[in-house]
Amino acid sequence: MNYYPKTIRKVITHISKLPGIGEKTAERLTMHLLRAPRIEIEQLARSILDLKASVRLCRRCFGLSDAEVCDICSHPGRDRLLLCVVEQPADMVSIEKSGAFKGRYHILGGALSPINGIGPDEIRIGELLSRLDKERIVEVILATSTTVEGESTAAYIIDRLQTNPVKITRIASGVPIGGDLKYIDQVTLKRALEGRHDAR
Amino acid sequence: MNYYPKTIRKVITHISKLPGIGEKTAERLTMHLLRAPRIEIEQLARSILDLKASVRLCRRCFGLSDAEVCDICSHPGRDRLLLCVVEQPADMVSIEKSGAFKGRYHILGGALSPINGIGPDEIRIGELLSRLDKERIVEVILATSTTVEGESTAAYIIDRLQTNPVKITRIASGVPIGGDLKYIDQVTLKRALEGRHDAR
Repeated sequence: MNYYPKTIRKVITHISKLPGIGEKTAERLTMHLLRAPRIEIEQLARSILDLKASVRLCRRCFGLSDAEVCDICSHPGRDRLLLCVVEQPADMVSIEKSGAFKGRYHILGGALSPINGIGPDEIRIGELLSRLDKERIVEVILATSTTVEGESTAAYIIDRLQTNPVKITRIASGVPIGGDLKYIDQVTLKRALEGRHDAR
Repeated sequence: MNYYPKTIRKVITHISKLPGIGEKTAERLTMHLLRAPRIEIEQLARSILDLKASVRLCRRCFGLSDAEVCDICSHPGRDRLLLCVVEQPADMVSIEKSGAFKGRYHILGGALSPINGIGPDEIRIGELLSRLDKERIVEVILATSTTVEGESTAAYIIDRLQTNPVKITRIASGVPIGGDLKYIDQVTLKRALEGRHDAR
């Protein structure tokens, strides 16, 4: 690191703080930035500065948004009767990429994890319940992760909705597509067998 | 990409333009930046903006520098009699990291490559010759790459220095340390055999 002038060392230090980027990669990226046209560098830096200033949470679904209500919530083509509950904005993006869902989302902002001090009040379960009161929703799809935390979050929501007649579904779990059975863990295989369905 | 608000899409686009960073990594880094403290993001962006403004080439060696003369050229402890000629600033950094050289550098800024229109006037060979005239240097170490371009650049410099009594050396080439002979290419092996030396 001492082999570079101070201005360059600073950039390397900051870039190597990013997750998954080691010092070697940070060096390579910094050298690229040094050679890149000024306009490209400025666009990069300004877009990063804009992030904190412009991005906020959608007032309705708590997803990432530029405006008060996000693009998905305000899109007239989305099915307002379906609500997909996920832990994080990134989960929403994954489902969007699959193209398999045309309803709206509710982002909890995490999953229940008593060990980390995350109880029902730390994630947006209250907000979910009040949406179900206010909006006409016929099905709540619980798309939390299949981790211990995600499963208990789903179970907790099912419990809180006991007296609510809304249909509640949970995403299927089983062997991922392209999965070789001999590399699949036992719990997943057990789930896949339990969840077997008629094939013809 | 359309799954994100515009401000976020912009950052992803700019980050994914960096070498070796795909869209998936750019997404991950952007999500990290969104969660990171404002101060961290601002430091990163400002350090990047500073790059173009502050970094320039050392007046003497043409290495990267914050000042008119770089830290190495102005360091009183460096041996002024030895001059190591490299292609790029990154090559200088690699040699510095090895700790094997305590002299000064001359950065050519490239290697001869007629196919890419890079002749002797496009790299700093004239500057090298005039340094040899002005500075008292006893040995020029040619540390250009062992590529076709690097080798011809070294050969060209040797040719230009024919009438100059300065000692000219070329870095050794051979099997890299930790190299398994069965994976080493034939040209390298040929070089390693030609360059063999007494072992006791």
